[in-house]
Amino acid sequence: MAGAYEALRERLRTISNIGKAGAVLGWDQNTYMPPEGVHARGEQMATLARLGHEMFTAAETGELLNAAAEELSDLPYDSDDASIIRITRRDYERQQRVPAPFVAEMRRHGSESRQVWVEARRTDDFPSFKPFLQNTVRLSRELAGYYGYEERPYDALINVAEPGLKTTDLERIFGDLKREQTPLIKEIAEREQVDDSVLHQPFDEAKQEAFGRMVVERYGYDFNRGRLDRTTHPFEIALAIDDVRLTTRYDPNFLSMSLFGTMHESGHGMYEQGVGRGLEGTPVARGASGGFHESQSRLWENLVGRSRPFWEAFYPELQKTFPEQLGGASLDTFYRAVNKVYPSLIRVEADELTYNMHIMLRFELENELLEERLSVQDAPEAWRRKMDEYLGVTPPNDRLGILQDTHWATGLGGFPNYALGNVFGAQIWEKAVGDNPGIPDEIGQGQFETLLHWLQDNLYVHGRKFETKELMERVTGKPISTEPYIRYLRGKFGEIYGRLS
Amino acid sequence: MAGAYEALRERLRTISNIGKAGAVLGWDQNTYMPPEGVHARGEQMATLARLGHEMFTAAETGELLNAAAEELSDLPYDSDDASIIRITRRDYERQQRVPAPFVAEMRRHGSESRQVWVEARRTDDFPSFKPFLQNTVRLSRELAGYYGYEERPYDALINVAEPGLKTTDLERIFGDLKREQTPLIKEIAEREQVDDSVLHQPFDEAKQEAFGRMVVERYGYDFNRGRLDRTTHPFEIALAIDDVRLTTRYDPNFLSMSLFGTMHESGHGMYEQGVGRGLEGTPVARGASGGFHESQSRLWENLVGRSRPFWEAFYPELQKTFPEQLGGASLDTFYRAVNKVYPSLIRVEADELTYNMHIMLRFELENELLEERLSVQDAPEAWRRKMDEYLGVTPPNDRLGILQDTHWATGLGGFPNYALGNVFGAQIWEKAVGDNPGIPDEIGQGQFETLLHWLQDNLYVHGRKFETKELMERVTGKPISTEPYIRYLRGKFGEIYGRLS
Repeated sequence: MAGAYEALRERLRTISNIGKAGAVLGWDQNTYMPPEGVHARGEQMATLARLGHEMFTAAETGELLNAAAEELSDLPYDSDDASIIRITRRDYERQQRVPAPFVAEMRRHGSESRQVWVEARRTDDFPSFKPFLQNTVRLSRELAGYYGYEERPYDALINVAEPGLKTTDLERIFGDLKREQTPLIKEIAEREQVDDSVLHQPFDEAKQEAFGRMVVERYGYDFNRGRLDRTTHPFEIALAIDDVRLTTRYDPNFLSMSLFGTMHESGHGMYEQGVGRGLEGTPVARGASGGFHESQSRLWENLVGRSRPFWEAFYPELQKTFPEQLGGASLDTFYRAVNKVYPSLIRVEADELTYNMHIMLRFELENELLEERLSVQDAPEAWRRKMDEYLGVTPPNDRLGILQDTHWATGLGGFPNYALGNVFGAQIWEKAVGDNPGIPDEIGQGQFETLLHWLQDNLYVHGRKFETKELMERVTGKPISTEPYIRYLRGKFGEIYGRLS
Repeated sequence: MAGAYEALRERLRTISNIGKAGAVLGWDQNTYMPPEGVHARGEQMATLARLGHEMFTAAETGELLNAAAEELSDLPYDSDDASIIRITRRDYERQQRVPAPFVAEMRRHGSESRQVWVEARRTDDFPSFKPFLQNTVRLSRELAGYYGYEERPYDALINVAEPGLKTTDLERIFGDLKREQTPLIKEIAEREQVDDSVLHQPFDEAKQEAFGRMVVERYGYDFNRGRLDRTTHPFEIALAIDDVRLTTRYDPNFLSMSLFGTMHESGHGMYEQGVGRGLEGTPVARGASGGFHESQSRLWENLVGRSRPFWEAFYPELQKTFPEQLGGASLDTFYRAVNKVYPSLIRVEADELTYNMHIMLRFELENELLEERLSVQDAPEAWRRKMDEYLGVTPPNDRLGILQDTHWATGLGGFPNYALGNVFGAQIWEKAVGDNPGIPDEIGQGQFETLLHWLQDNLYVHGRKFETKELMERVTGKPISTEPYIRYLRGKFGEIYGRLS
């Protein structure tokens, strides 16, 4: 087949354009769409999703992939073209394995189940959600069977977000975290707590917005190729490499919500804005994995945005923005406030120390459910037991326990990336600073170029070219390790809460 | 074929969803898209346009149309289902006649020609645009040939926007207007001119916006199913019957720009929000024709929004909004100011009296060019002559003459709807008020329900079911006539400028 690769790229461009059009519709739905537009919008998005899926999984795509692979068989492994063929083929083969009626069944289940979950959470009624969670478990197990796995069903599910990572890798990572973090959390819980009342005051929303914009622009997020809008549940979305948008939400009485939320989303956004242009219009033109994506949001939110050097540079400006609220609070008071940690019931409100425990709990329950070592019936009680074990707090009801997240309404396997993000972020940060020891000082002067360029050159540009473990080796020269993250936690919170054993 | 009509509707829904998705992308491009997103957006929109066109013109659509027509042959002519089959078939057959390579050629020409036109207008350089206009004329003639016509090539082109209307119908309408309006314009030009300086003052943009929103909400434009945003070239766009959006622009030193612009777009918007729900997801689910659409924007902008009863209701509120600027200006001063008419060179700045002359000139030149009675070489001079004849003003250069509009960069036949809008609007208004003589009094109390409901029941609900002449008979019980419009002009401007002969 002459020009098979060109024909493949043309086909992928069409599929990508359909997908990106769907993303525009999604962005609009979550920002500006009038309320009664929701039904028609659902239909429009479903049509685009179906067309894109049909075109991608069609036999013609497979034929073009084979012909293109033959045509370009002598290209280097990490070249754009070889990677596009390799990664697209991986996606194609996985999607090929799932029968269309099953895809439709999962979609129907998800749509119905989400509604039931909303109501069940509202009324703290786990029994009404129980059959739907049972169905989620059954469908996830079936999906894992279609995808295929050698050892554990979870391997098949995690492989979607983290190519090549195994359940045993995750167990090792979470084992390390459990061993190191559980005593740390207990120890800090016994120390004198930080006072963060300085953050809980009335803060004008327009000023919050202006300050957040200023910060992420200084980071290097490009507003000529992006936007920042308001929404209910903040997200980042890439409508093209040159059109990557952020959203945030404002709490008029709590500064952290939008400030750190905007930094967080800007990390996702700079990652997407930094993907190599040669990858545009293909499945490779986005962040490498859930964990790597989250590593960048966490890095810019926590390792940069909650660091002492950062606030040495920006606190005077923030004080000028809110003189009444912050004029009397010292840098140290503010720095300690934004780094307050304490065990709590709700994952999305958790801090960078306790967050991973929430994820570990879910990861463990998901595996027990999938492997039928735990019944859905017993899951709420298992949840409570683990919360007590890992965090020393117990939810008084299921609304604040097993019913808090929407994920299990639709499928299992979606949580680990949040914890991996913390671990990966610290490992990448340690390497970046090792290569460029001046980075913390630059941040102390409000400069981020060295860090951003290092991340762009070593991580962002690659898009989805490499599998998770492979990419970490490329970026840091080492296998995935929890050590940098633990070192970071001990260093930072030892300083704030007093030396930790 | 069993269930052919259901299969047809399913296919049309998919095509409609693709088209509406493209509309969302277009809206976003004109409101919020970051500047560097433009290239990728062009690709995304082109992909959707191609997919929708391919699916609509495919043989399968024709087969389903035939089978559905047979299946439902005994339905009443004006039922939703019979109309959907009839109108879709008309569209299908017309689009079928145009070869795909020609469609691509027109698209290429349009894209290149628009760029050349922008530069030619900027530098007042007609010769550089000349070969492109020649190509536009050639391609429009060829397109008319593909569509097919009995008498005049223009018949084929106008038929797209105004189904069933002929060139001779337009010549009759424009003949009436020329006979009645030319002396009126001359007479008014000799009267003492209205002073509209009250409109040319600094007006806070946020207050302009709030007032405009309030007015169109009172009209009955539904913000739960729509929005109002800022843009450079204002437009209305329907993303679904339940998601119809308006855009406007603000001049901080001129009140009319956004005020009447917003009213204008709200007329388009209320029309689209009023289309019968049974038509959603088909080619029939929008306004009937260019002329009918423009009739509603003109009706709500001019016949309502520039009427004395309207300002009796709203001027006190506007004075409260802008006390410094308007506190000292009487209702009469303001009413006369917003109705000032005078011959000018630029179509888009023309008032409701002189506007039609700009259109007539273009309509005549388009016909002469298409029928080779005029060469592109001689067109600028013909333009100047007609401007002098109809309006008594002569453009000093082509930038203010033949180069002012973008339309001829891409195709001919797009102008008449603007003039038809004035004529149709007045005829529909006269009928609505004839049926409900209380309408002007209601408007004087800031109430619009009777008028809006009459328009919804008699016009909006039908969508594209009927051809232009047929629809006017249905709505008003009479053939298209310029008399109501001329009566309206004479009445209104006779009052403002003194009795007209």
